[in-house]
Amino acid sequence: MKKKIGACFLGALGSISITAIIGALAIKRSLADSIGMITSTDLFDGVDLISMDQLEFFGFDVREQKLRHVIEETLDQCRYIDPEIIKPLESDLKEIEHFIYPGINFNCGQAINALSSISDQSEIPVRKIANSIESGLRHFKESRGLDDLIVINLASTEPILELQPCHDDLSLLEHAIDSNLCGAFRASSIYAYAAIRSKCPYINFTPSNGALFPAMLELAHEHGVPVMGNDGKTGETLVKSALAPMFKSRNLQVLSWEGFNILGNLDGKVLDHPDNRESKIRTKDALLPKILGYSPHSSIQINYVPSLDDMKTAWDFIHFKGFLGTKMSLQFIWQGLDSMLAAPLALDLVRLAEFAHRRGESGLMPHLASYFKAPLGVEEHGFSEQFALLASYVSDYRATHNSVGAPS
Amino acid sequence: MKKKIGACFLGALGSISITAIIGALAIKRSLADSIGMITSTDLFDGVDLISMDQLEFFGFDVREQKLRHVIEETLDQCRYIDPEIIKPLESDLKEIEHFIYPGINFNCGQAINALSSISDQSEIPVRKIANSIESGLRHFKESRGLDDLIVINLASTEPILELQPCHDDLSLLEHAIDSNLCGAFRASSIYAYAAIRSKCPYINFTPSNGALFPAMLELAHEHGVPVMGNDGKTGETLVKSALAPMFKSRNLQVLSWEGFNILGNLDGKVLDHPDNRESKIRTKDALLPKILGYSPHSSIQINYVPSLDDMKTAWDFIHFKGFLGTKMSLQFIWQGLDSMLAAPLALDLVRLAEFAHRRGESGLMPHLASYFKAPLGVEEHGFSEQFALLASYVSDYRATHNSVGAPS
Amino acid sequence: MKKKIGACFLGALGSISITAIIGALAIKRSLADSIGMITSTDLFDGVDLISMDQLEFFGFDVREQKLRHVIEETLDQCRYIDPEIIKPLESDLKEIEHFIYPGINFNCGQAINALSSISDQSEIPVRKIANSIESGLRHFKESRGLDDLIVINLASTEPILELQPCHDDLSLLEHAIDSNLCGAFRASSIYAYAAIRSKCPYINFTPSNGALFPAMLELAHEHGVPVMGNDGKTGETLVKSALAPMFKSRNLQVLSWEGFNILGNLDGKVLDHPDNRESKIRTKDALLPKILGYSPHSSIQINYVPSLDDMKTAWDFIHFKGFLGTKMSLQFIWQGLDSMLAAPLALDLVRLAEFAHRRGESGLMPHLASYFKAPLGVEEHGFSEQFALLASYVSDYRATHNSVGAPS
Amino acid sequence: MKKKIGACFLGALGSISITAIIGALAIKRSLADSIGMITSTDLFDGVDLISMDQLEFFGFDVREQKLRHVIEETLDQCRYIDPEIIKPLESDLKEIEHFIYPGINFNCGQAINALSSISDQSEIPVRKIANSIESGLRHFKESRGLDDLIVINLASTEPILELQPCHDDLSLLEHAIDSNLCGAFRASSIYAYAAIRSKCPYINFTPSNGALFPAMLELAHEHGVPVMGNDGKTGETLVKSALAPMFKSRNLQVLSWEGFNILGNLDGKVLDHPDNRESKIRTKDALLPKILGYSPHSSIQINYVPSLDDMKTAWDFIHFKGFLGTKMSLQFIWQGLDSMLAAPLALDLVRLAEFAHRRGESGLMPHLASYFKAPLGVEEHGFSEQFALLASYVSDYRATHNSVGAPS
Repeated sequence: MKKKIGACFLGALGSISITAIIGALAIKRSLADSIGMITSTDLFDGVDLISMDQLEFFGFDVREQKLRHVIEETLDQCRYIDPEIIKPLESDLKEIEHFIYPGINFNCGQAINALSSISDQSEIPVRKIANSIESGLRHFKESRGLDDLIVINLASTEPILELQPCHDDLSLLEHAIDSNLCGAFRASSIYAYAAIRSKCPYINFTPSNGALFPAMLELAHEHGVPVMGNDGKTGETLVKSALAPMFKSRNLQVLSWEGFNILGNLDGKVLDHPDNRESKIRTKDALLPKILGYSPHSSIQINYVPSLDDMKTAWDFIHFKGFLGTKMSLQFIWQGLDSMLAAPLALDLVRLAEFAHRRGESGLMPHLASYFKAPLGVEEHGFSEQFALLASYVSDYRATHNSVGAPS
Repeated sequence: MKKKIGACFLGALGSISITAIIGALAIKRSLADSIGMITSTDLFDGVDLISMDQLEFFGFDVREQKLRHVIEETLDQCRYIDPEIIKPLESDLKEIEHFIYPGINFNCGQAINALSSISDQSEIPVRKIANSIESGLRHFKESRGLDDLIVINLASTEPILELQPCHDDLSLLEHAIDSNLCGAFRASSIYAYAAIRSKCPYINFTPSNGALFPAMLELAHEHGVPVMGNDGKTGETLVKSALAPMFKSRNLQVLSWEGFNILGNLDGKVLDHPDNRESKIRTKDALLPKILGYSPHSSIQINYVPSLDDMKTAWDFIHFKGFLGTKMSLQFIWQGLDSMLAAPLALDLVRLAEFAHRRGESGLMPHLASYFKAPLGVEEHGFSEQFALLASYVSDYRATHNSVGAPS
Repeated sequence: MKKKIGACFLGALGSISITAIIGALAIKRSLADSIGMITSTDLFDGVDLISMDQLEFFGFDVREQKLRHVIEETLDQCRYIDPEIIKPLESDLKEIEHFIYPGINFNCGQAINALSSISDQSEIPVRKIANSIESGLRHFKESRGLDDLIVINLASTEPILELQPCHDDLSLLEHAIDSNLCGAFRASSIYAYAAIRSKCPYINFTPSNGALFPAMLELAHEHGVPVMGNDGKTGETLVKSALAPMFKSRNLQVLSWEGFNILGNLDGKVLDHPDNRESKIRTKDALLPKILGYSPHSSIQINYVPSLDDMKTAWDFIHFKGFLGTKMSLQFIWQGLDSMLAAPLALDLVRLAEFAHRRGESGLMPHLASYFKAPLGVEEHGFSEQFALLASYVSDYRATHNSVGAPS
Repeated sequence: MKKKIGACFLGALGSISITAIIGALAIKRSLADSIGMITSTDLFDGVDLISMDQLEFFGFDVREQKLRHVIEETLDQCRYIDPEIIKPLESDLKEIEHFIYPGINFNCGQAINALSSISDQSEIPVRKIANSIESGLRHFKESRGLDDLIVINLASTEPILELQPCHDDLSLLEHAIDSNLCGAFRASSIYAYAAIRSKCPYINFTPSNGALFPAMLELAHEHGVPVMGNDGKTGETLVKSALAPMFKSRNLQVLSWEGFNILGNLDGKVLDHPDNRESKIRTKDALLPKILGYSPHSSIQINYVPSLDDMKTAWDFIHFKGFLGTKMSLQFIWQGLDSMLAAPLALDLVRLAEFAHRRGESGLMPHLASYFKAPLGVEEHGFSEQFALLASYVSDYRATHNSVGAPS
């Protein structure tokens, strides 16, 4: 019998999550192909990743709405998904609806609180919240007879968490939880803690820095759990990471790299709050100095423009200096549907985290660097160079496992 | 005593050539740094490439004009080079002026003939023209006491040469020359033939396909001469080769890639002729299918817009399909000074060809793939991947030669 | 009782026509508002134009397909129209289907012939074809009890018709028809001739120059019929006509204006043929010299890019010279749904042509200049200036007719 | 004998001012033509405006530097002006250098103070500063034998001045000066007050709102002095005012209009300070609701990017809704040399203010609306419509003055 694997989405009613769910179901029912998923390319031929029909969805969200209602609303606003694809999924979606639970809005800042429809959790001890998430994960895993359960954070960006000594040392972290040192945790910290302790691989697809700090990585190693983050690389930063190495390799000096992003989905609304935007800009901004070896003048603007819905639009102006001090420029305009770009990557990451867990890997997964704006534990930021890490992970696997038991 | 190396530029009065000459002199006299030259980055630390003050310039051109006059005219039209850089080079330039000889306009098509101010050569036997170029190269080399002489084709793009059996086999080629089979040769063929027979490394920086066909590569091997081409990758195609692998790696299907180029220099004027443009478009166009593995809808327009002078401007519109069949787009606008981008690469190639020759390499130099739009003998078209070939060539060299005699 | 007015669309199965039909029905049934129609703005307050529920649709097309099938196909390819708008129109559309007749493909060139599914008409005398169209128009008008019938050419662009003496003089024109001088006519000529003789106002929304030549205008005057053309101004040219006067007024010298258009609908496919493209480029190109008073370097490219469907995308690069000879640039990128921009203008023109006819106007309608790329009889090409002609027509009307009989 | 007219530039060492001075001298000496000046087009044929050789330059600046030094520095950074134009102006510039005096930095905010090299004036009574400016203006006018003296504010943007009752009533204003109510004045207020009392026409080419408030307009009327402002319309806003009416006229609903400006000159540096930027954004932002009749989502970003020098670059993304609710977009990219665009307008305004003064006009000059982002006393913001006001002013003049005494 085939294994059954759970995918637990934090921010399960968000547009990346619903797109990933619809997409996985549509692929399973042969209503769509798997374009946009890297794990479905021939790079992975012969690698025994789980397939879409082995997935069971589960999730948490701070908005108490019905999944199908959210989907309807989303499609109403922007008709990106063909209604013909969704109709046959009606009963699947109805079932999944039962597995989306009220989430945590603990210390998430004003912008997320404003969206949140669940009751205030600030009075509940951190440990108690963590325990309830742990028991939720365990219950889902057992009741559904799952072989593994992957947790992936697709929730809105939290404000930056100021890191303290307790984030560097696991025993101090446990102590901080026990003494309910609230300021040291955000919702994403508690989810990550609970997931890892429940032996669930954890992926941070958001810029929120409250999840995968050093003490948490220690915990992951201890529990034999693979983790990775931060911040899925889907649009402007993806292009940046493909273009910046070109300037470096050609010895063309980037004078200024100015990026203007406009977007209109919920993610954009949350990023309209300066605290949350700061988190995002930090992961987007680190890249250039690391690729170029120096810091050009650079700024990143993110503006909320509701009419755009999910169609993130970005203009980047790159001013550079060439031979004999002459100035030239490259501009690009990116018009990408954020959720459509992110969702297949989220499904990829579920498959690759499950694979790594099954193979006994734990801690960071640097071979997944190309998926993230700020890949933990990886200094390389050039896209092709990062992608080579994935290719080499796969070929190493092939070299050692001519045949491996399929996850049936 | 330091070695002296000649750089022979075909199209010596063209803007790439004059920019390379001014640049090399300015670097030699510390009036400019070597930004834009890859060989001056730390990738080449410890690699004993020749320096700018070892170079002696030499060249051929079909226009019989004075070098300094051409420079003045160019600067008058477009003030890209700081006049303060040029003033102190007056006497250097005056000397180089004596070493620019009337070139070959043999079978180059209407557009180049229209520029040409030298007498018609169509009645002179091919062999005789080749001999005269050979003796010119030899004379310069000997009279100036050069240790090596690198020939680099920077001339205007010729119409496509239809390849025949004689281009595939060296003995047939020799026979074709002896029987004066004019249609089998263009100016670039004769230059390449003469250069290689004179043991001068030969670089084809143009799209002209008449120079480095199989029989010529055979000749290069026979004479122990390294050669490489075709078509320097300086602008739109450079960006294309950096971006296309991103779509491939992310499993995003490129539906259409439409490129519009406008430029106003002499190169643009020649490309305004359909025959010559066809050569260019062919080298620019081959890239996408090779990187992507399929052929998206694609077109490339090159229009001559005199007001732009050397500021090549390109708009590329890339339409692509992602998850669930959704359509998105990426556009880029490139505004680059063609000669400023090409000249430092030409100087790089002179240095690297001399280095390869000194090390006893002959035939194609695949490690130089990243310099060319249509790199001979290399199937890889992704820029980062091509650049890795250069990095690996350097590190192989370092691994085997901890210390090597400097070219003094 | 309210008057009933017919709208006869040439190219009735084309995307402008189906969009206009769906739009008019949706407005009539309050499923959509009239955004994009100028006649629904407060400029026309108190002007007794006909309303959408007075319209009856009728049409000709060279493709023998079912209207609803074409609509389905179109929506399948590009989901621009909300399916919720179309569902309630099912029975309306079913009825209109009966009034779309096989059209004329007489001397329309290869590109249109390739689309055409009707039998070859080249052997039928011109007079006979004209008579059959006339009787079709009359029959529809009478059988439906219409008060007026407006014919508007929305068909694909024909190749340029070389004008001859018979196009300048009505008696020569009649003679050319009688002597079946085929080369003097294209389909659009015959439609225009038949429409005008049937006392139907005629609008040429296409660039085809075979319809409204001087002799035809004479015919229009004779029959008391208002006519206007050529070529609906919907996208790149619209923006051009708004921007070019700015350069003129500011005494900034346009050096070059380069326009690149890519589009993927049927119109694009027909324009992919050089003959048809030439017609289009001619109407697009005339504008700059007329606005600026001199001819800058200018080129217009139109490429067929199927993946874009109806989303016409254009990049215009405007290079200009300012104070002290400095060069600067303005670029724009237009992404507009061609049919969505054209359809409301077509409905406007039906309303305004009916209004003019009712008021006893005949011949050209210069107040409609702002609707056309090459407005007949109007030298003004600046958009604001043209629009002022419309505003002044309306205010003249208001000044003289404080109250006028509504078209009930 | 020809009249002599003074042009007094506030911010005389700024780049607009030095460009205007160099330009006027170059035109006078036939080294350049008057491209970019509207008053040199045939619209003004037969209108007896003063010519460039009648102008005498004079100015104030808060930076105590030598004019020629500033020019050298500017040209060093950006080689926009041909050095061949400047060389022959050496002695002219040397003379003008004597007429640039230390200016006022009174209550100008931190950003301007940081540039200022003159001593602190906050302790000096407002009336005393005003008197000293008045006597400076008078002295220059008399000592140079001028027939008129035009004052034009080209200085950096000040923070917004909060308007109080004393700005609405001239007697209250005089009282506020006498009682040294410092918070009610900025440098620009004092210059305007002094200019008007000295019977010098005053033009506010900056967004600073501290100059032309109602009480000041009263003063202008009283002294028979023409004035106009605010904020020269040179780049992004110019294009905006040409494009926005098109959307209005076509009944296309602008959903969002997002503008991103990057620039690198001193103006940009001052605008990098939030207080000063606020002034600018206010004048740029008022336009859309006035043209469209509703307020679309709109934001304007201005970022300081030093590498761009004077080359202001702006990306505007316009999202709009058309027929049947479909969404489309127009983007434009403006790359304009700010000073090159502004300087000829400044010279135009000097000529037109002198002309108005000579003709006995006083108070606002609404016919100059097209020159300003926020034209005082004019509700019309469409560019073509504003330009028509100028054309009509000229034709009214022509109609009444078939011949008028030339200003000789």
